[in-house]
Amino acid sequence: METIKAKGYGAKGSFFNGLSEMDIERKAPAEDEVQIDVLYCGVCHSDLHQVKNDWGNTLYPCVPGHEVVGRVVRAGSAVSKFKVGDLVGVGCMIDSCGSCEPCQHHEENYCEGPVSFTATYNGYMKPDGSGFNTYGGYSTTIVVKEGFVLRIPENLDVKAVAPILCAGITTYSPLKHWGVKEGSKVGIAGLGGLGHMAVKLAKALGAEVTVLTTNKDKQAEAVQLGASHVVLTTDAKQLEAHALSLDFILVTIPDTFELNDYVPLLRRDGALVTVGLLGEYKKALNNMEVALHRRSIAGSLIGGIKETQEVLDFCAEHNILPEVEMIRMQDINKAFDKLKDEQVRFRYVIDMASLKEE
Amino acid sequence: METIKAKGYGAKGSFFNGLSEMDIERKAPAEDEVQIDVLYCGVCHSDLHQVKNDWGNTLYPCVPGHEVVGRVVRAGSAVSKFKVGDLVGVGCMIDSCGSCEPCQHHEENYCEGPVSFTATYNGYMKPDGSGFNTYGGYSTTIVVKEGFVLRIPENLDVKAVAPILCAGITTYSPLKHWGVKEGSKVGIAGLGGLGHMAVKLAKALGAEVTVLTTNKDKQAEAVQLGASHVVLTTDAKQLEAHALSLDFILVTIPDTFELNDYVPLLRRDGALVTVGLLGEYKKALNNMEVALHRRSIAGSLIGGIKETQEVLDFCAEHNILPEVEMIRMQDINKAFDKLKDEQVRFRYVIDMASLKEE
Repeated sequence: METIKAKGYGAKGSFFNGLSEMDIERKAPAEDEVQIDVLYCGVCHSDLHQVKNDWGNTLYPCVPGHEVVGRVVRAGSAVSKFKVGDLVGVGCMIDSCGSCEPCQHHEENYCEGPVSFTATYNGYMKPDGSGFNTYGGYSTTIVVKEGFVLRIPENLDVKAVAPILCAGITTYSPLKHWGVKEGSKVGIAGLGGLGHMAVKLAKALGAEVTVLTTNKDKQAEAVQLGASHVVLTTDAKQLEAHALSLDFILVTIPDTFELNDYVPLLRRDGALVTVGLLGEYKKALNNMEVALHRRSIAGSLIGGIKETQEVLDFCAEHNILPEVEMIRMQDINKAFDKLKDEQVRFRYVIDMASLKEE
Repeated sequence: METIKAKGYGAKGSFFNGLSEMDIERKAPAEDEVQIDVLYCGVCHSDLHQVKNDWGNTLYPCVPGHEVVGRVVRAGSAVSKFKVGDLVGVGCMIDSCGSCEPCQHHEENYCEGPVSFTATYNGYMKPDGSGFNTYGGYSTTIVVKEGFVLRIPENLDVKAVAPILCAGITTYSPLKHWGVKEGSKVGIAGLGGLGHMAVKLAKALGAEVTVLTTNKDKQAEAVQLGASHVVLTTDAKQLEAHALSLDFILVTIPDTFELNDYVPLLRRDGALVTVGLLGEYKKALNNMEVALHRRSIAGSLIGGIKETQEVLDFCAEHNILPEVEMIRMQDINKAFDKLKDEQVRFRYVIDMASLKEE
């Protein structure tokens, strides 16, 4: 079997000593795959959760990165959508079973196959569960099935586009699914990588956006991003003043939080959807507030490949780009520290050229 | 002000000594109101919650009863829908603000007026919050605005029809709202007053019904009511075998329960709706299972007056009746004990003639 040598950054045995440089071997592209040389890779909060083994399922070595932008350098013989030189992206998935009902309806992110979809990192190599441990985009090159590769619109700034592939689609998909449109009253809780994209996307969809934050200092930034209102959720009076005011709340907070604080903000038939937290809420939900106005509490997970292309094109059309800070691959551990302390505005993107310099 | 004397059964100072007979005064019907002599009144689990002050808002004396069937004995001058002698029903509400958005859309049950809707018992007399403490249907006569009075279809057994006014509409409304139809896979958790009606209604709507129960002994009854499958929720293997199998779950359990046990049963985009519990779930919800398949957790509260008429007519058309056990008013405390112990099959209905016998 032909293999390709690559350089990457990963957690070797555990995250205890942070990420460090490592050599990776990848399988050369099969006939339906392309090899992509990585130019930029976004730093998602999930990367940190995964390398720290917060979800208890991390297999080391762990090479994160699922906001990958690069150029095709090699294409398998059966590849028809892409050619060498194309600017492309890879998001959170690189494969899925293809035959279940969600896969048949362009929702590979909800794949019901044996191992769900194949995650870009820390995933099974194949949708049948064989060959565990995929390596992500914190590396010089990656090999992906063409059906899971996105076309990057040429008018988007290539340095800033990567976070659309996770932060963008993860927020766009629920906004669309729950029918956010012209005139919708939308709350966005949490103003990090996902939240800041959610504000921009909801605004572009025509919604009146209210940012819900625990951090006073984010008020000006929220308005700058497009929010019409900012509610400090630590202030009971502000919460009360906004009761029954929102059609939809998207919560992008990456850690556990007190769900019951947000429920009264929803109008009748309103939905609160959590995309940041993949674990338990802080306290038990009180159904009194939920039932009184037929509210819903839901969750959503990234989006399908077709919809990921849609959000890229939507961003190109509406001139929406993530706010990014460029970093060198070698500075990833410092970046993780700042991410934990909410110091990033709003997404780090790794310039992969830094890795080749050494 | 003209008043009407009535007899009733209520909790006088607290529920400590149970319910006992009491004299009630009611305001004579205003021009848009009717006076109804009560024939039958269903015994809802909410009656027990309320007299015990489980929700912390009970005002004593508390005369429960919101599944009321009787005959009009007097009609105000402006009443146009009903005349003396009509067989009518009263459910959980007797008034609402009439001007908020839900009220304007026939969803008085989600009234956003100053005090929400006016509950049939333990409610404000008026939608502006004045004159607290309405008395319910555990009484010989009741006075209600005609807009909140239901017409009872003549072909339904008058002794059994009362529980449709709460148990029926409370389960019918979410089944309809969440689009249950021919071929839907529906789970019903809890097989009491609400649950047994939910099975019959879901079945009549064309759904394939799975009863989810902690009680082995209810298996035969579930099948008799129309269930195609019965899952014992205390058996992890049975739960696992039914993972991703249901479009919709209606939970009618009247007390707190472990929500996370039920979530994996839902398919992608499935919803679990809780109608029995008006309080906290047992444990914090885990959003991992919710987000993985874009599931929703929701609540629903009774239904609007128009929809209550719809479910009465639906039951008449499909020959659906609650399974009832008739009791005398004087036996209500014994009935409450059996209700707590889940011994009722499936709803007690008080024959109000018993109160007049004495």
